Amino acid sequence: MSLKAKIQGATGNAEYTQKVASLLARLDAQIPASLRLPESLLENPPLNVTSIPETCGLLTPEELAVTGLDATDVLARIASGQLTAVETVAAFGKRAAIAHQLTACLTDFFLDEGVEQAKALDGYFKREGKVVGPLHGLPISIKDSFPVKGRWGSGGFLSNIELSADDCDMTKILRKLGAVFYVKTNQPQTIMHLESQSFYGRTLNPYNINLSSGGSSGGESALVAMKGSCMGIGSDGGGSIRGPCAFTGLYGIRPSCKTTPMGGTIWYQPGHDGTLASSGPMCSSSRDMRLLVGAVLDAKPWLLDPGLIPLPLSVPDISQRKLRVGVMIHDDVVLPHPPMLRAMKLAKAKLEASPEVEVVDYVPLNHEEGYGIIRTLFFEDGAETIRRCLKEGGEDMLPLTEWVISPPHTKNHDVVQAWELRAKRDDYRRAYSDHWQKQGCDVVLCPPFSGTASRHDTAKYWAYTAIWNLLDYPGAVFPTGLIADPALDTVDANFTPMGPDDDYNHSLFAAPEAYVGAPVNLQVISSRFNDGLVLAAQDVIERIVKS
Amino acid sequence: MSLKAKIQGATGNAEYTQKVASLLARLDAQIPASLRLPESLLENPPLNVTSIPETCGLLTPEELAVTGLDATDVLARIASGQLTAVETVAAFGKRAAIAHQLTACLTDFFLDEGVEQAKALDGYFKREGKVVGPLHGLPISIKDSFPVKGRWGSGGFLSNIELSADDCDMTKILRKLGAVFYVKTNQPQTIMHLESQSFYGRTLNPYNINLSSGGSSGGESALVAMKGSCMGIGSDGGGSIRGPCAFTGLYGIRPSCKTTPMGGTIWYQPGHDGTLASSGPMCSSSRDMRLLVGAVLDAKPWLLDPGLIPLPLSVPDISQRKLRVGVMIHDDVVLPHPPMLRAMKLAKAKLEASPEVEVVDYVPLNHEEGYGIIRTLFFEDGAETIRRCLKEGGEDMLPLTEWVISPPHTKNHDVVQAWELRAKRDDYRRAYSDHWQKQGCDVVLCPPFSGTASRHDTAKYWAYTAIWNLLDYPGAVFPTGLIADPALDTVDANFTPMGPDDDYNHSLFAAPEAYVGAPVNLQVISSRFNDGLVLAAQDVIERIVKS
Repeated sequence: MSLKAKIQGATGNAEYTQKVASLLARLDAQIPASLRLPESLLENPPLNVTSIPETCGLLTPEELAVTGLDATDVLARIASGQLTAVETVAAFGKRAAIAHQLTACLTDFFLDEGVEQAKALDGYFKREGKVVGPLHGLPISIKDSFPVKGRWGSGGFLSNIELSADDCDMTKILRKLGAVFYVKTNQPQTIMHLESQSFYGRTLNPYNINLSSGGSSGGESALVAMKGSCMGIGSDGGGSIRGPCAFTGLYGIRPSCKTTPMGGTIWYQPGHDGTLASSGPMCSSSRDMRLLVGAVLDAKPWLLDPGLIPLPLSVPDISQRKLRVGVMIHDDVVLPHPPMLRAMKLAKAKLEASPEVEVVDYVPLNHEEGYGIIRTLFFEDGAETIRRCLKEGGEDMLPLTEWVISPPHTKNHDVVQAWELRAKRDDYRRAYSDHWQKQGCDVVLCPPFSGTASRHDTAKYWAYTAIWNLLDYPGAVFPTGLIADPALDTVDANFTPMGPDDDYNHSLFAAPEAYVGAPVNLQVISSRFNDGLVLAAQDVIERIVKS
Repeated sequence: MSLKAKIQGATGNAEYTQKVASLLARLDAQIPASLRLPESLLENPPLNVTSIPETCGLLTPEELAVTGLDATDVLARIASGQLTAVETVAAFGKRAAIAHQLTACLTDFFLDEGVEQAKALDGYFKREGKVVGPLHGLPISIKDSFPVKGRWGSGGFLSNIELSADDCDMTKILRKLGAVFYVKTNQPQTIMHLESQSFYGRTLNPYNINLSSGGSSGGESALVAMKGSCMGIGSDGGGSIRGPCAFTGLYGIRPSCKTTPMGGTIWYQPGHDGTLASSGPMCSSSRDMRLLVGAVLDAKPWLLDPGLIPLPLSVPDISQRKLRVGVMIHDDVVLPHPPMLRAMKLAKAKLEASPEVEVVDYVPLNHEEGYGIIRTLFFEDGAETIRRCLKEGGEDMLPLTEWVISPPHTKNHDVVQAWELRAKRDDYRRAYSDHWQKQGCDVVLCPPFSGTASRHDTAKYWAYTAIWNLLDYPGAVFPTGLIADPALDTVDANFTPMGPDDDYNHSLFAAPEAYVGAPVNLQVISSRFNDGLVLAAQDVIERIVKS
């Protein structure tokens, strides 16, 4: 199948079709002719496209070297004068153009603006002999729903697309710290799928283009996995940072809500505060997560948005104590697919063998109930707003939209019913907090999803991430280095489903070869506001798991 | 007029009347015969009843001395063995019984239980030679809506009265820290008046029994002003700690929401999180506010309630810098009554003359709009729940209930309208935050109310406190030592109203002698989460104002 067929986006009425055609023509025209991949490749792409930037001949060895760096390294080289901001954004920009042709990850490409920004930064550096801030010259890719002044943005529907009049809080802060913007990235219709198919198209997983790059920040994950960016900004209200990072072998953290900026993002349910999302980094190294979260919090985002809590990042020194790690192989509702189980079991064995940590079996508390609560909270209006957004744009409802707003979870509430729902949420949180404390774990290691990257239109069980959103427990994902391998990951013939969700999930793995090459990530969780502990523990756990 | 006539509570149908009679009989029977004031005094009470505990002959000189201490002193004496917990609670308990007969401040009197608790604490102290915690032996009075295990409680209606099965979070923590419980205190119907008239009766202001002791924590304020308690616990969602403390010359702080415990309190709109209340101390010294808030936060209330933010109290050292104080004499909507204006002007002059502080005129930002937003947020269901609570108890609606739920502010919302309302709230908060930062004040000094203690059924303009609830800016009130004096506080013949609320407020002061003897407090505000700065600044400002 050609890429063009694979990346098909949402359909709609005649007016919709015409508008989308014009948007896609705009986006296509933004990709310079000099960076076009051969049509033959696009007609017959390999399953794994991650090495094409290196083999296609469009990037110089220097550009390949630069785009192989993580953000920490990029910043160090720019700050020491070994690399200019212009060289940096040009390299990542070129690679992003290639990544987009293979995965449909972008929604806006404006390398020229990025180069102008970078020139100004280089000028400052030359003149003043110092950097403007901790992110001086770092190209950062931005999810479509985070406005960048003068650029395209949307809230997951054609009907709320805009040319943004101003930066949102996050991009305002990043810009002030020295970041350079050059691309915006795809997200799904509604921004509420764990995949990324929108009016712009469907984003593919670069490790296996028959799989999803995840969602809702799935443009970011595909782009960063292709090294068309070394630092992406996503948001996560149900798994939208951790899911896509897990699907594509990246690092990503969902910080505790109300710590990182979400102000000014495009959202079709403004004022809906029953459950919230937070913004965070999607990147290629553990240290880059700290770098980004630390820099943003040091910039005091609560001075822009008084809804934020003034809690700077504090990563504890855990080198002198034995970390207590709860291991949750599954959540008592859905058994993850064999590659994920293999990774979890390996990780558990490695941790148990390590003198650095104490391992206990973590017992989940009614995750099915919790998942039901957050699913109900997502659309307290019975998804009337979503239907209106679709109607206004003449946009057809995608299958995963239909699924995510399906009864019995999604229903309309009057305000008293909404209070009752929120009280139920608070009761669950309280019971969970008691339960968590009784188990006495510093962190929990668990799957980030019920499998590896999903096949298209199948990512329906989000509870491995969404339960922590409901609880507002921060979580980070990291790659194990393992990949799905049909030779190792076979169907369990003795499988007995724990329930219908489990049965459905199992059915998706009937053909293990469908998942070949998918990276396997794991997730580290701690209780609310212990973001620093998540980061510290993730480092230790990754080192042990990979030892 | 006899006290019995003055303290008349809410009326209702026959069943209601019978139930209330039985509750009042229970409460009356709880007051020991040995502590009864003479009927002649209750038939013809003086306007100011604060000295009656000293003159009535029912308390020993030792008991009068103990009840004259603040909490810090009480604790120091108990911890050093100079005073026993039993002596302490007995003294405060006896004085509370007297206070109740004069002001109708109590809803439950259980000195016997308090004495038992105190005996156990004294036993521990004798045995172990140390205290159980930082509040060892301190008698603390508790607002009716905060459950104390085994005692009466209510959520402001006869229909939600209960014998509490368990402590709420606040009383659980206080008990663990060593506090002793012996009384619960009155609050208004709905817990949403700035006065305190409920099915138990109407609480009177001890400095002028024709005036209100404020609300909704008005049982606490009357009791603490009578020295029947040296530490009371109230809650404040619109002014319910600061208002009553201001009306009765006490110290009180409304901490930033989600820092102090509210879990397990009785509330008829559970899950309504559009605007919140926080709990805090009502007491007779500045240092006691720090003591209580510090002790509660040190006990990590967020481990009980995961909705709380882990922010321990941090009072900054401001001795080495010049505090920048914004002075807001009025809010551009309602001009405070002459006693309050006199106090504000005196305070401003003293502050301007001090080298320790820099004084600027603080400009309010659309407080009328903000007050409208929070009034609308209070009852997003158009007060249907209130009507149900009244109906279920056969309880008549009091005039201030009718007022507080009146249109145009109170209206029913569907969930999308509720989101819109919350978005409006967030926009206001954001605009205000920018405005606040532009003025660059550490704190603002302003009136806590549009006058001193109110005449009954007239406290309708809460914006001097409620605006800070909407913004979640912490605030403390303190006594200036001034009192309303008809010789000094005369009607301004040249008054021109700024609007209808101003006109109404002015009309209430037509007879200045009505307010004779009412204490005048002022309020110190800082931006969200700067609770420690409020406390530090309040100390400095009070010292200068009283110099």
